[in-house]
Amino acid sequence: MASNTVEKTSVTLLGLGAMGSALARTWLAAGHAVTVWNRTPARSAALAAEGAEVADSAAAAVAANSLVVVCLLDDASVDEALAGADLAGRDLVNLTTSTPAQARARAQSARELGARYLDGGIMAVPPMIGVPEAGGFIFYSGARELFERHRETLGVPAGATYVGDDAGFAALHDVALLSAMYGMFAGIAHAFALIRKEDIDPASLAPLLTGWLVAMAPSAHQTADQLRSGDYTKGVVSNLAMQVAGTPTFLSTAEQQGVSPELLSPYFKLMRRRLAEGSAEEDLTGVIDLLLR
Amino acid sequence: MASNTVEKTSVTLLGLGAMGSALARTWLAAGHAVTVWNRTPARSAALAAEGAEVADSAAAAVAANSLVVVCLLDDASVDEALAGADLAGRDLVNLTTSTPAQARARAQSARELGARYLDGGIMAVPPMIGVPEAGGFIFYSGARELFERHRETLGVPAGATYVGDDAGFAALHDVALLSAMYGMFAGIAHAFALIRKEDIDPASLAPLLTGWLVAMAPSAHQTADQLRSGDYTKGVVSNLAMQVAGTPTFLSTAEQQGVSPELLSPYFKLMRRRLAEGSAEEDLTGVIDLLLR
Repeated sequence: MASNTVEKTSVTLLGLGAMGSALARTWLAAGHAVTVWNRTPARSAALAAEGAEVADSAAAAVAANSLVVVCLLDDASVDEALAGADLAGRDLVNLTTSTPAQARARAQSARELGARYLDGGIMAVPPMIGVPEAGGFIFYSGARELFERHRETLGVPAGATYVGDDAGFAALHDVALLSAMYGMFAGIAHAFALIRKEDIDPASLAPLLTGWLVAMAPSAHQTADQLRSGDYTKGVVSNLAMQVAGTPTFLSTAEQQGVSPELLSPYFKLMRRRLAEGSAEEDLTGVIDLLLR
Repeated sequence: MASNTVEKTSVTLLGLGAMGSALARTWLAAGHAVTVWNRTPARSAALAAEGAEVADSAAAAVAANSLVVVCLLDDASVDEALAGADLAGRDLVNLTTSTPAQARARAQSARELGARYLDGGIMAVPPMIGVPEAGGFIFYSGARELFERHRETLGVPAGATYVGDDAGFAALHDVALLSAMYGMFAGIAHAFALIRKEDIDPASLAPLLTGWLVAMAPSAHQTADQLRSGDYTKGVVSNLAMQVAGTPTFLSTAEQQGVSPELLSPYFKLMRRRLAEGSAEEDLTGVIDLLLR
């Protein structure tokens, strides 16, 4: 691998939490020279043993390479780490979890400091980094030419997906997917709670649950079609009136099983509100409009 | 097909809504003799044209065959339809949407009336009936010997999955899977709401959403393992403390995008409650315990 090092882009990485360390290791393993910095130096030692250059300060790490990747705890940590660094001419890639507004503000300040900027949202946990078959990936948004220039390097830890020149879009996509996942987790929690007091093995419910959710997830494509066309009755199989009519069975069952409906009832409430507005023939898509202020 | 009719179990079907009609059609197509009854006779005419025998009353339909399948609007409709029928010696299979308690009460009353009883929960919409590749299936619970005897007939409209001799278990599994699905739909609604005011095509978000949810759904297996062992720290990748630390980003992003957090915050609230109880190192599984009263 060492013979390839000269051809591969050298990377500076700020932040060696579980995610930062995983990123550094995949670049080292792929033959990239890596300069690391971490606020507390203990984690740097482990990476040094694996071939990383350790910088004494964030400013020194930023000075070492033109590609600077940041993966810190939060937006405030990024402020702090970059405070004394000279970003002029740098290609700054910020993988720190941010809101879209934080990402846009960071892009703006990077521009003012003479850097090019790319924001990233990591759709993976550390064990998925460097393991392509695990299916993790990273959303990127901001300067497209920066993404194209470093595409190969950025693709080393996980698949790289560019989602637009608005620097906030990577964070927005990241948050959208993870929000949907938490919704699914809430549904799964309710389902397991329903059987908790019965003689039903959770391990026999799990494959049924997974199979059903996997079969139903692609309904998002129909939702998207309806949102684009504005016609929420397009392709409806079980309309809002029928689905609302079914909700008492779900709530009674929860009550019979001693399960709080708190994770389920907010969605049912919005379904009923939309129905009350006269949308009986629609799909569930109208609920989305009710969420917008 | 007519030549096979004599070998195949004759079926009585009460209820010709969209689902009942779809069931009747698959049995007719598979060469079963089918006797139908519907409260309002209009729908029976269509089935008669396709070869079904039409009974004048529910009682006459029940008298026609020993296998009696019921697929009505709700539990009260079943009461009404069966009020004048002689169920003695009948194999009663009730596919009407019910709560577990309604299913158990129906099993009890069927036994008292001299019938064997099987309850069913249909995991499909009518267009999926008779289309094996659509992946729909029907949960059955109650008398196992009844399930075994009619397994082939019951498997004609959709895959048949037996989940236990407690008559309430089919309904409970049905409600559990559909509840989880509504949770996922709530998450998907929130995700689409987040991009609604941005220049992002919902059709470009849909495959990303679907792919991510499909990748994350199998986490239900780990949840099941943790529930069985009682050790909620087993195999944790991103612990509760870290996940709770991430929630402000989701809530701030919702606020920035003008999206109500009402579908997301109940789950986050339970995550925080569990963390406050000192479960920082756990997975999200502890939320399930908080739902139980």
